[in-house]
Amino acid sequence: MASPLQQPLKLALIQLASGADKSANLSHAREKILEAASAGAKLVVLPECFNSPYGCDYFPSYAEPLGKLPSSPPSEKESPSYHTLSQTAKDANVFLVGGSIPELMSSGNKETYYNTLLFFGPDGKLITYHRKLHLFDIDIPGGITFKESDVLSPGNKVTVAPVEGYGNIMLGICYDVRFPEPAILASRGTSGKGPCFALIYPGAFNLTTGPLHWQLLGRARAVDNQTYVALCSPARDMGATYHAWGHSLVADPMAKILTEADEKEAIVYAEMKPQDIQGARKGIPTGEQRRLKVYPDITQGEIKWEE
Amino acid sequence: MASPLQQPLKLALIQLASGADKSANLSHAREKILEAASAGAKLVVLPECFNSPYGCDYFPSYAEPLGKLPSSPPSEKESPSYHTLSQTAKDANVFLVGGSIPELMSSGNKETYYNTLLFFGPDGKLITYHRKLHLFDIDIPGGITFKESDVLSPGNKVTVAPVEGYGNIMLGICYDVRFPEPAILASRGTSGKGPCFALIYPGAFNLTTGPLHWQLLGRARAVDNQTYVALCSPARDMGATYHAWGHSLVADPMAKILTEADEKEAIVYAEMKPQDIQGARKGIPTGEQRRLKVYPDITQGEIKWEE
Repeated sequence: MASPLQQPLKLALIQLASGADKSANLSHAREKILEAASAGAKLVVLPECFNSPYGCDYFPSYAEPLGKLPSSPPSEKESPSYHTLSQTAKDANVFLVGGSIPELMSSGNKETYYNTLLFFGPDGKLITYHRKLHLFDIDIPGGITFKESDVLSPGNKVTVAPVEGYGNIMLGICYDVRFPEPAILASRGTSGKGPCFALIYPGAFNLTTGPLHWQLLGRARAVDNQTYVALCSPARDMGATYHAWGHSLVADPMAKILTEADEKEAIVYAEMKPQDIQGARKGIPTGEQRRLKVYPDITQGEIKWEE
Repeated sequence: MASPLQQPLKLALIQLASGADKSANLSHAREKILEAASAGAKLVVLPECFNSPYGCDYFPSYAEPLGKLPSSPPSEKESPSYHTLSQTAKDANVFLVGGSIPELMSSGNKETYYNTLLFFGPDGKLITYHRKLHLFDIDIPGGITFKESDVLSPGNKVTVAPVEGYGNIMLGICYDVRFPEPAILASRGTSGKGPCFALIYPGAFNLTTGPLHWQLLGRARAVDNQTYVALCSPARDMGATYHAWGHSLVADPMAKILTEADEKEAIVYAEMKPQDIQGARKGIPTGEQRRLKVYPDITQGEIKWEE
């Protein structure tokens, strides 16, 4: 049984402290990516909305047009974030999951906003993108009410991407982690996509859902799918309108927490190893033990990999 | 939005201390069921293999023929366990998830064994049964190696059953909890089955997989499906060949642990409330937010509800 990870890979999650100044956020992110690369990380992850404060009030003013993804990149003027990420991935010689940024798509008089993740290779080229598939619309009385769909539109694909020389990863954003289906089909693999060695979610849970579910969901995806799971949050800023939970973490394929930050700015690292995925899948071979004549095989249904 | 639970329901999990003497196990189980009923429980759960020690060496000698399930019950001589459970459910006036027992099915010269759960109503009639769908075949070096399939055959259906006046529950056994698919489709409901208000798993994890995954899997099924989840273990007996983890627990639809035993014999109770399911599903409405045009709806595929 081959591991879906071909060789060891050092992962860094940058729990970035961002503020209201976009260009300061971009410089700061660049600095931290270079720091992670110096520490030996080859796959580096930024948090959700790393270039702006998080909130429906901020998305339109921080949004950038991203051209026609993935083929035709935006100009430097249109998207400084795209170009900072691309250039920094190249300079740092890393695979870069560029957290997410608010994206503006204009078509005639219609403006559509997305919460969009850009994934770059060490050559600075875009490998793929993911638009948040499940929007964060929740209403917990006495806790938190939030409605991303007031401003944002959802993406329309599941995203699996190659990390050349290593294997495949699944990319999701924040609330996407609550949905088991994309994780199951990406980790098991289908239609030439996957199986993935890691499920990677930049995300900004909050002080209600963070303590309730952040670590649980990371570990749940790991135990069910026997992959690494990485959740990368912004640092907490009690001066901002949205208070992120922090606690960026990596769970291994046995759902053990390998590393977890507190709420402050930090870079956390984890070494991902082929034999740990192989060991989990050989020891507890649930992938092969599914009873697919009794219940449906979700990997065999119709899946949208492209928008 | 209606809750899948129609009125409050008090649940009891009996973390039974069983031994090698089957009739003593049956009397002891009966006593504890009556005790739980006296404390107000209306739905009572016994552990996996409550009438025998757990292990492939024991299954054949403790196995009982159960007649043609579910319609034609076995005689008292064939299955004292069936009749003790049926009579006790009636005497206690409870819905009784009779943990599981080893079942023998003979057909000509062929003997087949199952790990089988019997579910009785307060009238003593069998409501349904569940044969363990996913057999416990694992091999964790330095941890535990176990191969139920050396002796047992698996069931061939997902089991959802009515608790009259309350709603539906899903029934699984132990290793079944590792598989997200049946839980997803039972909790969401399909083909007139479900949606369920609780996923109930008698189970005997061990000292390797218990600390790793027992509570995690219970909470994972709860957070993904927004139902109650109950895991009911035997008490730990360090004199037995298999050391059960214990830690019977109930997670609520927000994945909070409502109650959890230690490793000793105990009855743990939880009050299940319609408004707590409703609250979780209204607050974080993932059931309605699934993107079923992007990935398959597992509830729409072919599902075996009958063997």
